[in-house]
This record gives sequence, structure tokens and C-alpha cells, in this order.
Amino acid sequence: MLWQDDFCRVVLVEDTPGYPGFCRVILNRHAREMTDLDRHERDRLMSAVWKTEQAVRDVLRPDKINLASLGNVVPHLHWHVVPRFRHDPHFPNPIWGEARRAAEPAQDTHPGEALRKALEQAA
Amino acid sequence: MLWQDDFCRVVLVEDTPGYPGFCRVILNRHAREMTDLDRHERDRLMSAVWKTEQAVRDVLRPDKINLASLGNVVPHLHWHVVPRFRHDPHFPNPIWGEARRAAEPAQDTHPGEALRKALEQAA
Repeated sequence: MLWQDDFCRVVLVEDTPGYPGFCRVILNRHAREMTDLDRHERDRLMSAVWKTEQAVRDVLRPDKINLASLGNVVPHLHWHVVPRFRHDPHFPNPIWGEARRAAEPAQDTHPGEALRKALEQAA
Repeated sequence: MLWQDDFCRVVLVEDTPGYPGFCRVILNRHAREMTDLDRHERDRLMSAVWKTEQAVRDVLRPDKINLASLGNVVPHLHWHVVPRFRHDPHFPNPIWGEARRAAEPAQDTHPGEALRKALEQAA
């Protein structure tokens, strides 16, 4: 867990090798689609997504950010915020296809604490 | 082209078999990331995304909506708004992986005109 309030939470995704700093922004209450939220809730959730994107950019300096809200398996609103690098397993493809190269051996990349601080400061 | 103003445009994506009603919302000016936009621009672009999502839901009644801003190949801000159906080629996986089943033969599904009307009314 990187950050939370009574509306949503930001977690570090640690089950995807090759993607340090991959974050997920998860709505606390249950809803399926962004257009199921009222305007205020939509703005509030996206504000958390932008703060997470900015924190990920500041901490990891990725070549590109990927954002996605899919939820086909778990239809509960959550946003993937994925720092992408030219050397990552799927670049330039989306991370959900077949890998083009192996994940680099785990480096000393533990961005959790820096992300937690950046999100605290942005809140 | 389904809709446009001086800020962004909504186009129907017709190069992805099995995904009728797949739309793309494209920023007119050049920017790479959402956090490169100011708050007003971010809100304005997302407002077009929500209108597109609502139009796609109203016209196609999908099982799920997928939203994504990737831009690894073309780093120019654009949002994919993808109506997903349990019988589509990749469900429940993201559309960017390997297909799990063939696209259904082209049906009489030409949602362009209905989407255009829905977006006009929402504008």
C-alpha cells in the first residue's frame, strides 16, 4: 500500500516481473465503469491517477506512461499506471501481450518508499 | 471521424477486426502524457473520454468498457475506448494479447452513425 484515503487507494503491483514502479489506483466503493460514477467521483479518482502518474514519473523517469482501466476479470474500477522503458519486456507493445525480451534481472530497484513519499507530498 | 472540436477529436477505429464501436479520442495539440497537460486541459480531454464511453455504452451495450492511454509507438496523447463483449476475440483478456477465439463474422454492426448522433447530443 502506497497511499490511501476514504475514497481510493494506491498500491504497488509486485506480481509483474520487469515492471518496477507499476502502480494500481483502486476505488474503495464498488463500481464497474467510470460513467457509473458521478462527476465529482470521476474527478476525484482521476486526480489520484494523475498524482500517481506524476509520482511515478518523478521517481522512475520512465520513457512513457501507460494508463488503463480494464476490469474484464475483476469488474471493479481500478487504474493501472505503468512506467514503461525501452528495455522493458514488452516495449513498445502493451504489457499484456507476449513478451519481446526477458525481464532484466532484479535490480536494486525498490521504488516503494520513494513513491510513498512522493504521493504523501502530492496529497 | 465521429466528433471534433478545436481541442480533440473522436474517431471510429476500423482496423481491429472483432471490435465494432472501438473509438479513439485524440488530442489535437501535441503532448505525450496526461501530466504534461494543465488541469483544465486534462479535465477537458477526460470529459470527451467520458462522453465517448457513455455513447459507446448507450449504442453497443457492451459487457465492459476498456479505457487505455498507451502511446508507446505514437507518443501523442490518445485514449482507446473499447466496448468489450464476452464473445469478443480476447475476452476477458486485454485486446492487445493473443486472441482466444476468432472474430465473429462481420455482422450488420455499423455503429458509426448512432455513435455520431450520441456524441452530438452529449456535446
